[in-house]
Amino acid sequence: MNYKETLLQKISDKSAVVSIVGLGYVGLPLALRFTEKGFNVLGFDIDQSKIDCIESGTSYINYIQNDAIAAAVNDGLKVTTDFQKISDVDVIIICVPTPLSDDKEPDLSYVKSTLQSMLPYLKNGQAVSLESTTYPGTTEEELVAPFEEKGFSVGEDIFVLYSPEREDPGNKDYSTATIPKIVSGHTKNCLEIAECLYDAVVAKVVPVSSTKAAEMTKLLENIHRAVNIGLVNEMKMVADKMGIDIFEVIEAAATKPFGFTPYYPGPGLGGHCIPIDPFYLTWKARQSGIDTRFIELAGEINTSMPEWVIEKMKSALQDRGLIPKNANILVLGVAYKKNVDDLREAPALDIIEKLLAQDMCVDYHDPFLPTLPKTRKYDLKLDSIDLTLENVKKYDCILLITDHDNVDYELLIESGKLIIDTRGRLRGDYKNVIPA
Amino acid sequence: MNYKETLLQKISDKSAVVSIVGLGYVGLPLALRFTEKGFNVLGFDIDQSKIDCIESGTSYINYIQNDAIAAAVNDGLKVTTDFQKISDVDVIIICVPTPLSDDKEPDLSYVKSTLQSMLPYLKNGQAVSLESTTYPGTTEEELVAPFEEKGFSVGEDIFVLYSPEREDPGNKDYSTATIPKIVSGHTKNCLEIAECLYDAVVAKVVPVSSTKAAEMTKLLENIHRAVNIGLVNEMKMVADKMGIDIFEVIEAAATKPFGFTPYYPGPGLGGHCIPIDPFYLTWKARQSGIDTRFIELAGEINTSMPEWVIEKMKSALQDRGLIPKNANILVLGVAYKKNVDDLREAPALDIIEKLLAQDMCVDYHDPFLPTLPKTRKYDLKLDSIDLTLENVKKYDCILLITDHDNVDYELLIESGKLIIDTRGRLRGDYKNVIPA
Repeated sequence: MNYKETLLQKISDKSAVVSIVGLGYVGLPLALRFTEKGFNVLGFDIDQSKIDCIESGTSYINYIQNDAIAAAVNDGLKVTTDFQKISDVDVIIICVPTPLSDDKEPDLSYVKSTLQSMLPYLKNGQAVSLESTTYPGTTEEELVAPFEEKGFSVGEDIFVLYSPEREDPGNKDYSTATIPKIVSGHTKNCLEIAECLYDAVVAKVVPVSSTKAAEMTKLLENIHRAVNIGLVNEMKMVADKMGIDIFEVIEAAATKPFGFTPYYPGPGLGGHCIPIDPFYLTWKARQSGIDTRFIELAGEINTSMPEWVIEKMKSALQDRGLIPKNANILVLGVAYKKNVDDLREAPALDIIEKLLAQDMCVDYHDPFLPTLPKTRKYDLKLDSIDLTLENVKKYDCILLITDHDNVDYELLIESGKLIIDTRGRLRGDYKNVIPA
Repeated sequence: MNYKETLLQKISDKSAVVSIVGLGYVGLPLALRFTEKGFNVLGFDIDQSKIDCIESGTSYINYIQNDAIAAAVNDGLKVTTDFQKISDVDVIIICVPTPLSDDKEPDLSYVKSTLQSMLPYLKNGQAVSLESTTYPGTTEEELVAPFEEKGFSVGEDIFVLYSPEREDPGNKDYSTATIPKIVSGHTKNCLEIAECLYDAVVAKVVPVSSTKAAEMTKLLENIHRAVNIGLVNEMKMVADKMGIDIFEVIEAAATKPFGFTPYYPGPGLGGHCIPIDPFYLTWKARQSGIDTRFIELAGEINTSMPEWVIEKMKSALQDRGLIPKNANILVLGVAYKKNVDDLREAPALDIIEKLLAQDMCVDYHDPFLPTLPKTRKYDLKLDSIDLTLENVKKYDCILLITDHDNVDYELLIESGKLIIDTRGRLRGDYKNVIPA
């Protein structure tokens, strides 16, 4: 048997050892899923604290239960920081972050350093799959080229795949196992491996013709979201000036059974995908001399929303005879979306920082985040305030940024002095609620 | 009984006489539907030829059958050009065009002249419903204000409604009767009439809180489409530079079960809604000092597509050693979308005009349009060429603009010298097909 046939055989009979590099929001669920389906799984991470958590059966992601991790460890899931062990595995799946640099350019440093760490231990017969979101051409440039330089014949000795992650933290309807998965390979043989590998763990694989097409697919999904959210944010500002409730309009438009999909405005974009991924295409397109004007406009408008929300709040305070500078504000909900504890790119952080910079007195409440951890950009040193009647009455303004379901909104409506609602959560004829 | 109760009663027992002003793509199906449901319907149009057609049981819209018109006439549908008869009716539904002027500003002249013609004959107890797409505030400014100036108390003596049309010519899944209908009224009484009236003829009415909200709803639906098509057109140009098939990418992205809706690129926008309606909001928003940047960007990109398609065609001809100026071109499909005979704002007309201006020899084929009628903008004086083997072989290039289903695409692939496909219809490894 040649390398391809051997590997296909090992995947089919589940004797293949599958390694997952990067055990975060993408890698951890994937490691659990491969373990659940009977594979020997070896997880890699450079963060020793993640390794310790997993080994002790403790989750560090709120919607993944400790039990699920303990069960996987019991079923043989192993984790390590030692890249030498790459030489013991058959499949390497890379799930590391692809953030933006400060000047909004792709930061592939995690992908590159992962590849540097693995490269000495790669051997014939292995498959390497990249899952990180990135611009078209990355797999060819960053994986295929160095592998071939090292003497491997990609598609014969070694197999290079690209299969973008589609994780949606907190989604109750879909999980790693049930979301259809785009798969691609550098050659026909690579694609065959990709289909076989992912078919073993997900409900449906969707093969595309090239790694570039797969890279572009993931970007298009997130560009579509970023642009549609940018559009409704712009429409919100227009409707606001005209005295129209944009949420009523969106819900009415959504009754059209074709040609319309509802997207909702908010206080700005958050999460690890939508605010970041689109600019990967912008950067790459610019190298070909093309502008991606929709992406840039969406970025500009979405980034301006925190400022717009703050201005709405300040004028509502002024309408009530208060001086915004002297007001004390409770920011309600800081996670980037509801019902999760995820703070990545959360606009609440930007808003809190801006309010503090204007000398306002700011607290926050978030049922999922008892304290604000230090992030790459922010170090705000605040603890979540309890949402008691006394506290609700105390604040001049409650700024509703993320509408978690486990919050007592009736209490707010009954006792809050002024509530600025950026989510259309408190609609109705409430005199103390101002949409923003 | 007061006026409201009397009118509700008349609608309920179908003794109300319903008049439809403007018997085009919107008004004609609506007149047929009210007739079908047992109302006495009086259709108005300023175009005598439409009146003659209806009276002789002849359709002037390709997807409405002669039989349907003959049956309605048989059931009592009457039509006239005489606005004096407005005094005989209970309900007046206005379905006249709201185009753009040459400088892209709202042209409400049809609405205004209709209202001028009706105003002398309006009387207590009537309801007037506007269905034309327009900017928020139109119903208040153009109907309510002049009616009140004439001495009517809107909501007591006379009722003003706004219910935007949602017709989709050629849609096989949805029709006037089955598309949910947004309804609104200037007062609560007006809304009550609106719900009762439309509930009698459509499967579902969706009441909203104000005529402004209803006006904005229709605009948002079409803005959403214009922007999403603009976005995929931009993405097409980016993917083209990167050697990626945008249709493959869109289809792959569409397998994501949440957060993505596919829209498809094309040779430019057409039809009576998408290229026009968004600018109604742009104009009104500008009056409040706000820019609608997504709408303007979408307009700019969508309007540039014909030029981009022509450039792609010219470079494909040059690659084949031909001088574009000397090439003879067959434009395939000129209607603004497939399987209809509707030429309104069709990008094919713009493309043909541009090709002729560059001295190319241009013919066209469209199974639904044997000849190109004079339109507001164009007078091209061309007849449809038969799509015979001989003709297909004759042209240096076939430019596929609208992919009607009743065209022999195999013949094109087998015998066409060069086909420029703007619809992703002819995908596969065909050497004579170039996507554009």
